[in-house]
Amino acid sequence: MLRRKRIIAGIDLGGTSMQVLIVDQRNNILAEAKAPTRRAKKPLGVVADIAKAVEEAMTNAGLKRSDLTAASIGAPGPVDRDRGIVHEAPNLGWFEFPLGPALAKRLRVPVVLENDVNAGTLGEHVLGAGVGASNLIGIFVGTGIGGGLIINSKLYEGSHGGAGEIGHMLIVLDGPLCGCGHRGCVEAVASRTAMERDVRAAIKSGRKSCVLELMKRRNKTRMTSSVINAALKRKDPVMREVMERAQRYLGILVANVVNLLDPECVVIGGGLAGRLGELYVGPIREYAHEHFFREKDVKRVRIVPGKLADNAGAFGAVVVARRRLR
Amino acid sequence: MLRRKRIIAGIDLGGTSMQVLIVDQRNNILAEAKAPTRRAKKPLGVVADIAKAVEEAMTNAGLKRSDLTAASIGAPGPVDRDRGIVHEAPNLGWFEFPLGPALAKRLRVPVVLENDVNAGTLGEHVLGAGVGASNLIGIFVGTGIGGGLIINSKLYEGSHGGAGEIGHMLIVLDGPLCGCGHRGCVEAVASRTAMERDVRAAIKSGRKSCVLELMKRRNKTRMTSSVINAALKRKDPVMREVMERAQRYLGILVANVVNLLDPECVVIGGGLAGRLGELYVGPIREYAHEHFFREKDVKRVRIVPGKLADNAGAFGAVVVARRRLR
Repeated sequence: MLRRKRIIAGIDLGGTSMQVLIVDQRNNILAEAKAPTRRAKKPLGVVADIAKAVEEAMTNAGLKRSDLTAASIGAPGPVDRDRGIVHEAPNLGWFEFPLGPALAKRLRVPVVLENDVNAGTLGEHVLGAGVGASNLIGIFVGTGIGGGLIINSKLYEGSHGGAGEIGHMLIVLDGPLCGCGHRGCVEAVASRTAMERDVRAAIKSGRKSCVLELMKRRNKTRMTSSVINAALKRKDPVMREVMERAQRYLGILVANVVNLLDPECVVIGGGLAGRLGELYVGPIREYAHEHFFREKDVKRVRIVPGKLADNAGAFGAVVVARRRLR
Repeated sequence: MLRRKRIIAGIDLGGTSMQVLIVDQRNNILAEAKAPTRRAKKPLGVVADIAKAVEEAMTNAGLKRSDLTAASIGAPGPVDRDRGIVHEAPNLGWFEFPLGPALAKRLRVPVVLENDVNAGTLGEHVLGAGVGASNLIGIFVGTGIGGGLIINSKLYEGSHGGAGEIGHMLIVLDGPLCGCGHRGCVEAVASRTAMERDVRAAIKSGRKSCVLELMKRRNKTRMTSSVINAALKRKDPVMREVMERAQRYLGILVANVVNLLDPECVVIGGGLAGRLGELYVGPIREYAHEHFFREKDVKRVRIVPGKLADNAGAFGAVVVARRRLR
């Protein structure tokens, strides 16, 4: 009987932490679990941690391990869906790792694999801010910037499974160096990492800012979304300036892809959008409107923050699993 | 009997001239005709000219007017496919003109309407340089820059019929003013119009160039593809510099859309690619490779000049008609 409920564990595997959701057939979240991603460990150690988090969440949901129908992972990098391989996950130091089979062996259920941003986009499309849109663009801003595309109501993965690298579209000619080795990518000028670099440079050049103090007080070594939020609330001038520049770049990015793809909806997801919501997305929307080619798009293209916050990737992974295992 | 052959007139309606192809069911070109687009005339006058060109081509093909099954037009602007309306064609000075019904009345056959660049992309996909690609990007460079997208082997028109405005993606922050009113669009830095502006500015600033002389000798008021070709053959330094800059911008544009859409093929069409071929597309390809996010794409994404030259739009219009009238 319970088996019929098709309980699926959706996992969003990030570079610093993993999020697990136990979801039933009607998309009710029965339980969740969060655990750090200990990337210093070998890949199989991380797999053991994932299995443990899934088991813990199942217990919290009042279910036995045998009640689990399948697990599905959103992984931070390009994946081979058929063979369950993570081609490359720079944040984890993984290269060609068979995550799917390894986790399937531990959990003894089928395991489905998808890129985390594609999963997040699908999550927002099926259950979040993008419900009903037949063409949708997901943009997830965090330490990096990733994108996902829904075309004709389906996840579009491209000819070689690599579509959606929106963060590596060039936006500033000869601009700052990006993690990918190129210059001027959107990720290199508008991600949280880029913003932190710019804030630190401004402080180093002698400008006053409360950001470093806020980080120290929160015991953070990085400029997290909560630090950014606190600095903006204090009207920190450096933070405001850096934020506005990032929003302008993201607005132009949004306009570029809207001009190209003519979608109904653009969902801005990730930590910053989750924490700041309209405060973050509002100015991005205004900059985008300034660069729309079609006047009419101002009224008919929705640019909205994601609704599922940290759950988008794990929820999307569940949706992927349900479709693939059908 | 002849009626069964499904003779279709494909028309590419440009701002300066129109190209008509008479095509049979097996995609043989039975005849063609070219005529100037006399845009000083009223829209119905242009419609009469189109009808005349179609009739002339039918005669050249040894066919009677009654042998014509349908006509199909690629129009220079966004269109309403269902009602046969050209929403806006700045090059013709048209606004909400019912081109489809007007031509249908004259030719007494069904008339199908599509945007010219979409038609050109479809032409190259079905019969030209992009045969077999399930995901393909068409980029047409001329007085402007237009784009067309084939996604999952079908023309992708977006949620509101406006997809493919690749020429109005911003590539130079605060760059030169574009015809659309924004700054730094690809069209404003890499179209033939932008190149002519840059060549004229260089000459005005005192640099030596043979371009104006070549134009005069050919009786051209504009820097046409043949003028560009002749100037490059003479190794005109201004022309070479301006061309290389335009190629760099186009290379970055290609990389941006490849990074986003992960296609198998990018077809560069339009007058310059038709005239210069590999001389034009080669450097664009090299610049694109420099900006690819996925190393592997260098080997697996083809970047090629169009094969159908001036016939792409008219041929594509025929393909559109055949699909819609099926």
